[in-house]
Amino acid sequence: MTKFNNTRTVRIEWGDCDPAGIIFYPRYFEVFDASTALIFEKALGMTKFQMFKNLEFSGFPLVHTHARFLKPTRFGDDVAVKSTIKFGRSSFEVEHQLSLKGEACVECSEKRVWVVRAANGRLKSHPVPETVLAKFNTSSSS
Amino acid sequence: MTKFNNTRTVRIEWGDCDPAGIIFYPRYFEVFDASTALIFEKALGMTKFQMFKNLEFSGFPLVHTHARFLKPTRFGDDVAVKSTIKFGRSSFEVEHQLSLKGEACVECSEKRVWVVRAANGRLKSHPVPETVLAKFNTSSSS
Amino acid sequence: MTKFNNTRTVRIEWGDCDPAGIIFYPRYFEVFDASTALIFEKALGMTKFQMFKNLEFSGFPLVHTHARFLKPTRFGDDVAVKSTIKFGRSSFEVEHQLSLKGEACVECSEKRVWVVRAANGRLKSHPVPETVLAKFNTSSSS
Amino acid sequence: MTKFNNTRTVRIEWGDCDPAGIIFYPRYFEVFDASTALIFEKALGMTKFQMFKNLEFSGFPLVHTHARFLKPTRFGDDVAVKSTIKFGRSSFEVEHQLSLKGEACVECSEKRVWVVRAANGRLKSHPVPETVLAKFNTSSSS
Repeated sequence: MTKFNNTRTVRIEWGDCDPAGIIFYPRYFEVFDASTALIFEKALGMTKFQMFKNLEFSGFPLVHTHARFLKPTRFGDDVAVKSTIKFGRSSFEVEHQLSLKGEACVECSEKRVWVVRAANGRLKSHPVPETVLAKFNTSSSS
Repeated sequence: MTKFNNTRTVRIEWGDCDPAGIIFYPRYFEVFDASTALIFEKALGMTKFQMFKNLEFSGFPLVHTHARFLKPTRFGDDVAVKSTIKFGRSSFEVEHQLSLKGEACVECSEKRVWVVRAANGRLKSHPVPETVLAKFNTSSSS
Repeated sequence: MTKFNNTRTVRIEWGDCDPAGIIFYPRYFEVFDASTALIFEKALGMTKFQMFKNLEFSGFPLVHTHARFLKPTRFGDDVAVKSTIKFGRSSFEVEHQLSLKGEACVECSEKRVWVVRAANGRLKSHPVPETVLAKFNTSSSS
Repeated sequence: MTKFNNTRTVRIEWGDCDPAGIIFYPRYFEVFDASTALIFEKALGMTKFQMFKNLEFSGFPLVHTHARFLKPTRFGDDVAVKSTIKFGRSSFEVEHQLSLKGEACVECSEKRVWVVRAANGRLKSHPVPETVLAKFNTSSSS
């Protein structure tokens, strides 16, 4: 499978920043979580809310994440977040590159699993549905 | 019904504060929401999680809130939050007074409704259960 | 002075929502705080970051806010936030109307003061600079 | 230098959780950031706010972090966070182990640098002051 990516612009807000005047780093993970949801929205043509309704899907919880912070960003900055996804069988990896005016600021990788709800109500790992993979293969990155 | 109140101490954290070095005010509402849940925990002897399991209860969404900001607080401050609840039939009001070393910093009032899930899956207003009110009447404020 | 307003679209994200599946209300105040900053950006042609550099300005802390929650919003919702500002001498009021598909969801009013840093380092109230007011008078709402 | 550690209890709140009913993972990083500040408070006997006033110190920004999510936590859970610090020359590493009833839920490692403000106003890396290291050597872990 080829990789699929999506790029979006995010405004860093006053309330995202700490007393040092730079972004409080947990806010980056909020940005990345939304960026991952957006990749699916771009490829599938439905929001995460609609994915719950329309697909065999109960979430894609994070297994691990690793982030490197290269340069700080500040309120008023409009940063670019390029997110690239690569699928395994019942998991996938996303690389997020956050940059400001072409300069890399944060690099983050995450591994997530596709889960569905089992008969006993618990979440369990499940292969990413073929219909989902097919959509990614026929969509073009933006 | 007599009023019931609870007081707790909350540490203001670095990440709660903005580039002015003082708390970013939406964080106060996170504190107040948790303080309201804690009043019930103190009176009922169960967490909000357990309330969902054990009571006719699907939440107490906010109808309106009003807050006055008198003095800023900073990271490292240990503030006192006194929360006082007064019940109506299917709603209740909570007053939160947040103070630092005896000086009032924020006053917040909120009105919430007790809701349950209707047969059609939607949330609907519902009288606060008698068992809940009884617990508040027999518990002593702290 | 005529009122000035600005409208923007905000995506409600998964991470903004709570276990009830609807937005956790403190997130609305994050949205409104950024919306207030954006009014100034639209009228003055500079970000809040640039306002600190270029104007006699050390912030516009909140004095009080009042919000009514009429209908919940959910992740995947693209809400419209219309913010209207009206100036006093050293304070201003902003009304935020947050709606989904034309239906009002939240109404919020806030009062803020314009502050500058006094010689002793403390923040003090200060008249909104004439140059700022002039910009609002000659800009058109969007 | 021997390692120094500190353990604290953190309540997971309703507003920390997402529509899946489990904690939204960026909240863990808020917990870990505060836990790192608390290690210093325990060893030095001063809050981060006081460190800015009393030490050659302008922050300890994060260079990279890696987290593994083993088991989810839910609102109402009281989790234990054990944080262990190990110093380099002008940097340090912290390991956070977050557990619920003795079961590991999250493991996070972070590397941070000690910074001071240079003459030109920019932040620059700086050796961790000897007085700070001495305090850690004479304090006992809790």
